[in-house]
Amino acid sequence: MTYTIQQIAAALGAEAVGDTALTITRAAEPAMAGPEDLALAMSPQYGDALAQGKARAAILWPEADWQAMGLAAAIFTPRPRRAMAGLTALMDPGQEFAPGIHPNAVIDPTAQIGADVSIGPFSVIGANVQIGARSVIGPHCHVGAHAVLGEDAQLREMVSLGARVRIGDRFIAQPGARIGADGFSFVTPEVSGAENVRKTMGDIGDAQAQSWTRIHSLGGVEIGDDVEVGANSTVDSGTIRATMIGNGTKLDNLVHVGHNTRVGRDCLLCGQVGVSGSVDIGNNVVLGGQVGVVDNIFIGDGVVAGGGTKILSNVPAGRAVMGYPAIKMQTHTEIYKAQRRLPRVLRDVAALKNAVFNRDSND
Amino acid sequence: MTYTIQQIAAALGAEAVGDTALTITRAAEPAMAGPEDLALAMSPQYGDALAQGKARAAILWPEADWQAMGLAAAIFTPRPRRAMAGLTALMDPGQEFAPGIHPNAVIDPTAQIGADVSIGPFSVIGANVQIGARSVIGPHCHVGAHAVLGEDAQLREMVSLGARVRIGDRFIAQPGARIGADGFSFVTPEVSGAENVRKTMGDIGDAQAQSWTRIHSLGGVEIGDDVEVGANSTVDSGTIRATMIGNGTKLDNLVHVGHNTRVGRDCLLCGQVGVSGSVDIGNNVVLGGQVGVVDNIFIGDGVVAGGGTKILSNVPAGRAVMGYPAIKMQTHTEIYKAQRRLPRVLRDVAALKNAVFNRDSND
Amino acid sequence: MTYTIQQIAAALGAEAVGDTALTITRAAEPAMAGPEDLALAMSPQYGDALAQGKARAAILWPEADWQAMGLAAAIFTPRPRRAMAGLTALMDPGQEFAPGIHPNAVIDPTAQIGADVSIGPFSVIGANVQIGARSVIGPHCHVGAHAVLGEDAQLREMVSLGARVRIGDRFIAQPGARIGADGFSFVTPEVSGAENVRKTMGDIGDAQAQSWTRIHSLGGVEIGDDVEVGANSTVDSGTIRATMIGNGTKLDNLVHVGHNTRVGRDCLLCGQVGVSGSVDIGNNVVLGGQVGVVDNIFIGDGVVAGGGTKILSNVPAGRAVMGYPAIKMQTHTEIYKAQRRLPRVLRDVAALKNAVFNRDSND
Repeated sequence: MTYTIQQIAAALGAEAVGDTALTITRAAEPAMAGPEDLALAMSPQYGDALAQGKARAAILWPEADWQAMGLAAAIFTPRPRRAMAGLTALMDPGQEFAPGIHPNAVIDPTAQIGADVSIGPFSVIGANVQIGARSVIGPHCHVGAHAVLGEDAQLREMVSLGARVRIGDRFIAQPGARIGADGFSFVTPEVSGAENVRKTMGDIGDAQAQSWTRIHSLGGVEIGDDVEVGANSTVDSGTIRATMIGNGTKLDNLVHVGHNTRVGRDCLLCGQVGVSGSVDIGNNVVLGGQVGVVDNIFIGDGVVAGGGTKILSNVPAGRAVMGYPAIKMQTHTEIYKAQRRLPRVLRDVAALKNAVFNRDSND
Repeated sequence: MTYTIQQIAAALGAEAVGDTALTITRAAEPAMAGPEDLALAMSPQYGDALAQGKARAAILWPEADWQAMGLAAAIFTPRPRRAMAGLTALMDPGQEFAPGIHPNAVIDPTAQIGADVSIGPFSVIGANVQIGARSVIGPHCHVGAHAVLGEDAQLREMVSLGARVRIGDRFIAQPGARIGADGFSFVTPEVSGAENVRKTMGDIGDAQAQSWTRIHSLGGVEIGDDVEVGANSTVDSGTIRATMIGNGTKLDNLVHVGHNTRVGRDCLLCGQVGVSGSVDIGNNVVLGGQVGVVDNIFIGDGVVAGGGTKILSNVPAGRAVMGYPAIKMQTHTEIYKAQRRLPRVLRDVAALKNAVFNRDSND
Repeated sequence: MTYTIQQIAAALGAEAVGDTALTITRAAEPAMAGPEDLALAMSPQYGDALAQGKARAAILWPEADWQAMGLAAAIFTPRPRRAMAGLTALMDPGQEFAPGIHPNAVIDPTAQIGADVSIGPFSVIGANVQIGARSVIGPHCHVGAHAVLGEDAQLREMVSLGARVRIGDRFIAQPGARIGADGFSFVTPEVSGAENVRKTMGDIGDAQAQSWTRIHSLGGVEIGDDVEVGANSTVDSGTIRATMIGNGTKLDNLVHVGHNTRVGRDCLLCGQVGVSGSVDIGNNVVLGGQVGVVDNIFIGDGVVAGGGTKILSNVPAGRAVMGYPAIKMQTHTEIYKAQRRLPRVLRDVAALKNAVFNRDSND
């Protein structure tokens, strides 16, 4: 597949200069670009790398002097990272799953399959399932009974949608994503040690050893439009009401969303984020990699949590947090700096005690 | 499916009052309940929500005045969370996997399949496997050679049981659970940098760059009765002896249990918990979400670890721990509070040094 | 299968003494060993356990007096953990996947399958795939279009290799491993709150609520020789250039490697490690369980990170680090000890202020 510089600029809504009829076949990093590649040099730091490569065309940062760089053509874009979205969408060959319904798929006769849907080999579509038009169900997928999947979905291989899950349009699921596993909810006959600890933040009290009885998950999962779920991530079914993921929210790989939790719209949950049950997350929230969220709290709109943050209590809207437990990012930085000076401060205090009280504090 | 209030109360061992012949079709949260729903209002905080909904029947907290609330019938239960277990078990329609053995399953002729077992499409059952009566093997499952699975198992789709795994009765596995992957165990020809660091808690010493040789896993996995393993969780095979999970223990999603580890009975390992190899965990232990446990330590009976705790040394029985590294929960809280005051204390110490020694400490 | 002591010693390159024609059938822990087992007692701490068991032969630590222990034969090895590698490799029966290509596999006619390759039931091999000689593709695997897999690969069940992934020789993948999911890369039309936070380490500023546009992953994944990837782990496709894993590197279960990241050779990434995008990791790096690595940093050769470490900035070669954020392991230990004394120090400072300034500091 080849593209002219003009075609690419048009697709990006960007400005093309020079020989805009020049054709390229793929995008490349500046230093590795050959004469048929479009070099991606979107900030001045790539200027030198561009000289090392052989690109004749590049996407450049706004003020770049493309002619001095010896380029035949260039594309200028005000927000380069955004241009990456358009460019990569244009050039993505995808997984090349075959169109149509594979003869080795097992599809319940009561399932309603929309127009131009493709279903890969060894996929299983359960009773009364609805799949919207143009959706692509990859190989080895499982769509449970009564599940509803909107239009233009793209399921990679080995994706699970449990029974009665409801998902909007343009859903993307990476390999091994699990929507609608049963929630993790158990109860002991009498109050358990863990319940005592939560109440007192102290010890397990006089709780006896007991076995756990299962609370089943009747609530299912409801997912809005334009949601993406990463590889091997899990979104559990709610107990009575549905676990919910709002429109436009994206989950990275190995993310866990517990039962009854509601995630708002346009959130990002990065790799290995874990959200417990019954959490209420607002809109436009960004949780960095490996963030953990304890159960039964809320996280307000626009909250940003740095990687590794453990959120153990409510977070008001608009706050940036970090740490374990999570606190305001600025406070975390201040405390952290103070901690690094702590060993010296202890020595200072010992010296002060010696001077003031005429004895050593270091006992 | 409909249920009378009397039927539900009987199933829960609870007390029914009012029009106990009233029928309901599902459970619902109080504010969203319609006239055919059973509202779940198990503590006084739900009183107002009940008034917003249209429920005619509810499960209520012990002292609630059901008639004043305008209800036609009510169920009273002393431990409401326990009632949830009975109620949801009663009403769970499950995944509706078809009974019987699907013609598209591949079953080795030497496998011994118990009475009334069902096996879903595209599942593979290996040589000499034993599956107990009434077990449900979902679609796309893999049961490796010589594996033994007890009675009344419920495997969701895409579950892996490796060769020679042994599992008791009433096992539940969520989608993508992996039992019996090979343990992560490697060795270098000479002492490695990581070994030096573990010994000295210092640096890597004079260790040379080396490659890793694999230690294979011969020990398999042994799992007791009434165990549940969450979606995409992994329990690795032991090296020489089996990795073991005791009766009644439950693992949430994305949990990792390393090779040779023994987990006792009636434990809860919450979402994304990671237990290294050769750990010895007692009975009735609760590890909160994202807890990590270093290798070759023990955790005593009844221990409770708060979410995000990293356990780096032995924990005696009955202790509640938190933090990284894990310490007693009360001590963690005390230290944490002190930390928040740390920046101010540093200023205080500087002022003291100035006053006492007539010089500034902040250099 | 039986082995003579002589055979085992020869396979390990170790020294055998006593009745070296004695046969054993399996390896066992000393206390549990029967008369047909080879007891593994590789350090003096196992001396007593050996007496409790019934082994007639053992692998022993260098100075052990095997005759005084009543053994008929013994094997001595200078680095016992290394002997475990040889011994377990010798005795591993493996998964016993059937040889040959199963009739229920779906293989594109354009795929090039090497000599003596075996492919399990319900596996899917895409267009133009190349699979090297003697590779074993387990059941339920998916090899995407144009993927290249070297010789002697061993794929357990339900492994995904995405389109255009390139993998060297002797690759091992545990169940559910996902190579080549799309990277997690999104952009908003205008600067987002998260971008502001990263810039200022402060709050989200005046960023407006916005939706995310996807950046596609064109770069694929390139994996060297002798790499192993654990159960349910994920390695994402790069954006423009490939995500890379060097020769000899091993990933444990539930590990995440983000897009564009390069991991060097002979690294160990332990359970649940999460590496963000565009990270550059050197050779012989060991990351303990649940370590997290923020994006766009480098980690030098030979770095060792303790379990739970969150690496938020560059780490120079040869350093041992720990903590959140990661610091030198020795500094971490020192700070940690000081923290435990912090509540007392606060009381000391209050007393000092009272003595020096005649007022209490505890306000």
